[in-house]
Amino acid sequence: MNTQSALLTDFYQLTMAHGYWQNNRTDTEAVFHLFFRRHPFQGDFTIACGLEPAIEFLQNWQFTQTDIHYLASLTNKAGRPQFQPAFLDYLHNLKFECDIDAVKEGTLMFPTEPLLRIKGPLIQCQLLETALLNLYNISSLIATKAARIRLAAGDDPIAEFGLRRAQGPNGGLLASRAAFIGGTNSTSNVLAGKQYHIPVSGTVAHSWIMSYPTELDAFKATADLMGSDTVLLVDTYHTENGVKNAIKTAKYLQTKNEALFAIRLDSGDLPMLAKQARNLLDAAGLQHVKIIISGDLDEYKIAEFKQRHAPIDIWGVGTRLATAFDYPALDITYKLGAIKNNKEEAWQYKMKITDDGSKKSIPGILQVRRYYHQSRPIADYLYHDIFGIDDALQKDADASIDLLEPILRKGELVNALPTTAEVREFAQQQLMLWRDHGQANYAVKLEAKLKAISNPE
Amino acid sequence: MNTQSALLTDFYQLTMAHGYWQNNRTDTEAVFHLFFRRHPFQGDFTIACGLEPAIEFLQNWQFTQTDIHYLASLTNKAGRPQFQPAFLDYLHNLKFECDIDAVKEGTLMFPTEPLLRIKGPLIQCQLLETALLNLYNISSLIATKAARIRLAAGDDPIAEFGLRRAQGPNGGLLASRAAFIGGTNSTSNVLAGKQYHIPVSGTVAHSWIMSYPTELDAFKATADLMGSDTVLLVDTYHTENGVKNAIKTAKYLQTKNEALFAIRLDSGDLPMLAKQARNLLDAAGLQHVKIIISGDLDEYKIAEFKQRHAPIDIWGVGTRLATAFDYPALDITYKLGAIKNNKEEAWQYKMKITDDGSKKSIPGILQVRRYYHQSRPIADYLYHDIFGIDDALQKDADASIDLLEPILRKGELVNALPTTAEVREFAQQQLMLWRDHGQANYAVKLEAKLKAISNPE
Repeated sequence: MNTQSALLTDFYQLTMAHGYWQNNRTDTEAVFHLFFRRHPFQGDFTIACGLEPAIEFLQNWQFTQTDIHYLASLTNKAGRPQFQPAFLDYLHNLKFECDIDAVKEGTLMFPTEPLLRIKGPLIQCQLLETALLNLYNISSLIATKAARIRLAAGDDPIAEFGLRRAQGPNGGLLASRAAFIGGTNSTSNVLAGKQYHIPVSGTVAHSWIMSYPTELDAFKATADLMGSDTVLLVDTYHTENGVKNAIKTAKYLQTKNEALFAIRLDSGDLPMLAKQARNLLDAAGLQHVKIIISGDLDEYKIAEFKQRHAPIDIWGVGTRLATAFDYPALDITYKLGAIKNNKEEAWQYKMKITDDGSKKSIPGILQVRRYYHQSRPIADYLYHDIFGIDDALQKDADASIDLLEPILRKGELVNALPTTAEVREFAQQQLMLWRDHGQANYAVKLEAKLKAISNPE
Repeated sequence: MNTQSALLTDFYQLTMAHGYWQNNRTDTEAVFHLFFRRHPFQGDFTIACGLEPAIEFLQNWQFTQTDIHYLASLTNKAGRPQFQPAFLDYLHNLKFECDIDAVKEGTLMFPTEPLLRIKGPLIQCQLLETALLNLYNISSLIATKAARIRLAAGDDPIAEFGLRRAQGPNGGLLASRAAFIGGTNSTSNVLAGKQYHIPVSGTVAHSWIMSYPTELDAFKATADLMGSDTVLLVDTYHTENGVKNAIKTAKYLQTKNEALFAIRLDSGDLPMLAKQARNLLDAAGLQHVKIIISGDLDEYKIAEFKQRHAPIDIWGVGTRLATAFDYPALDITYKLGAIKNNKEEAWQYKMKITDDGSKKSIPGILQVRRYYHQSRPIADYLYHDIFGIDDALQKDADASIDLLEPILRKGELVNALPTTAEVREFAQQQLMLWRDHGQANYAVKLEAKLKAISNPE
């Protein structure tokens, strides 16, 4: 199921492109911004994520011969072809040539701030909207969820294994990548391991245990296979007996000069079972054996179990992370900021205004400057790249950076993207800074000249 | 982003496969069942969906040279290779050879009933688990959500446009397919249109309106482009003015012997705005112009708007359908039912038992017989394919069918799969039967001999 296709778009993008082409507006240039309107999970921050998948998509973007053939087959209600053949030729020959500026993946962002700015032919900006929103939605959502889980788990290792319940194969692939960036330590998803160099981890399933005559047979087979990496799943039949069999297996491993790494609990009253297991293990002199738990965990469950002082060493998270279960879509959008009908004309700034004001957009060609005091972010200003900004505004700042950085110029990569591990490192630095200094109402302001064009009346 | 890879699996599947191989268990055969434990959305039914994507995945399943190279690079905590080279050779040469029996896509199913039965080498069954769960999860979930929306909307057309907020590109592709099967009439997702022959539809975006000097200019440009397919998005600036401009545009279309098809409302108090718009349109003699609405719609909102007698003709659904917003993962699982260590041995029946009983599985090689009375389903019996079933059990039945049908034998397709349109037709028949005769507690029973092995004590 290959989704690297220029047809990964909404039909209306093609309808509009057709309209712009018919009206001789192929030279019209535009600037669009991709941003979200509110934080997911009723939270205080969102981690920007999705740039690498977006760039991969853009660099392979084209309408193939079979795509054109399909589009030529479409008809309107009156039975006439939906698209003129000359327009389809135009599409077939389109070469991606936009400029992209983006915030670094892993940056903590706030509502209305652009994560991505795309500038180029209006037709191309429009045709790319849907895929960019799709890729940023899953990535930023899951990175943010993982970061929340990371904050709840403190320094404990977190193993991610959401692929089986993720929404589709690359829903799972992108979720594993984003989860790692947000703060998980490993994934069960082998394809994500291969593609993004994420450490893979895993144990055995209940079916492995069940495929042997007895639980102890299965545990010994696991020990023979995994040595000092052995993790024993103790809840297939009866957890207390399972722990006792694990203790026998630990002794067996000791005879081979190896050590049982951990036991895993996956069902029942997990904090209570963890306490019982810890007592049994400790009484057998197995203080070093760790306890891994799993079973619909999220940041709330982890916080609750920590409050109950459950002796849990490693957290396994699946469904609730990989689908962002309690908030499965980011309120993300892509809005026109400026347009010019040809190269000679000046930019016109554009905004959407709705009756209720809720979906108003900010006009212009936007940039975000983040101000710092003693290495700590203190405020963000949205400003217009043409109008500029007066740094004297933020008197208490001792440093600042512009968050949008050049990524593509005329479709070509101008700087190599960081590795996934580097993105993760950056995101974790940001997250720890936020944890230590975060505030529920971080200030995002509009620079004065931008404010003037945003509130015309 | 191609996810057609045998590495689309959990690492522990490979660990277990390695263990089975080391223990000379490559001839061990197994039967697994894929089923869900409870209905999503706190509902009364679930639509089985995901077979065609699963078969496509299985027919292309292999470990490539680069996959093997990656696996060979993995090490355990002690720094030794995770997998023996001879095992990796074995993987590289594996050829998919399982038998698959599945319920028809579009069938209404109930907890514990197998949607899919896979029989073959234990190692292969295990390696395929994750991908099968992933593909069925998104598909059955979204088909079920769409069916619920279909029931709320009655016979009104429903346009699906969730791709931008779906979880990843093929999250979106599979969601559009499943939504169509569940009951939507069209998709905005052009790739889904191409791949699954789903009707595509769409209008224009706010950015199109904003790219013209005035709203009326934009509307006339839309009318010139779309003729009698024209849908005008009236809420970019001020909805009431937008409707008035739409009326002018309708008159303009009449001068060209064409008719405005619809207006679209996307923000604000939608039922109230729809009533106002209907009044204005009717007063202008435009009774034929339809009203399309969109904006975070789901079955609850549609039911509410219908109760408020909002004059809405067509429903546009996006985020809440494509992500199954209120229940984004099906509680789906894949359990070992039977095993035999070699071809000569008899099958041993296997079940998982947990302390709290919540995750117990049913042993055996399962089949589901659905009994009918006057074409209406009245009860399902799970039975063991080897033990058989006595139809006299269900005295009031005048017909029955076995839901699991042969799909693959030794990896080869034994019957052509239906088209997506045929699957949709079947699902809609099932759904209308359920609507007219559905019951909250549809009976799913265990045949007596199966019951005996399921409750051994």
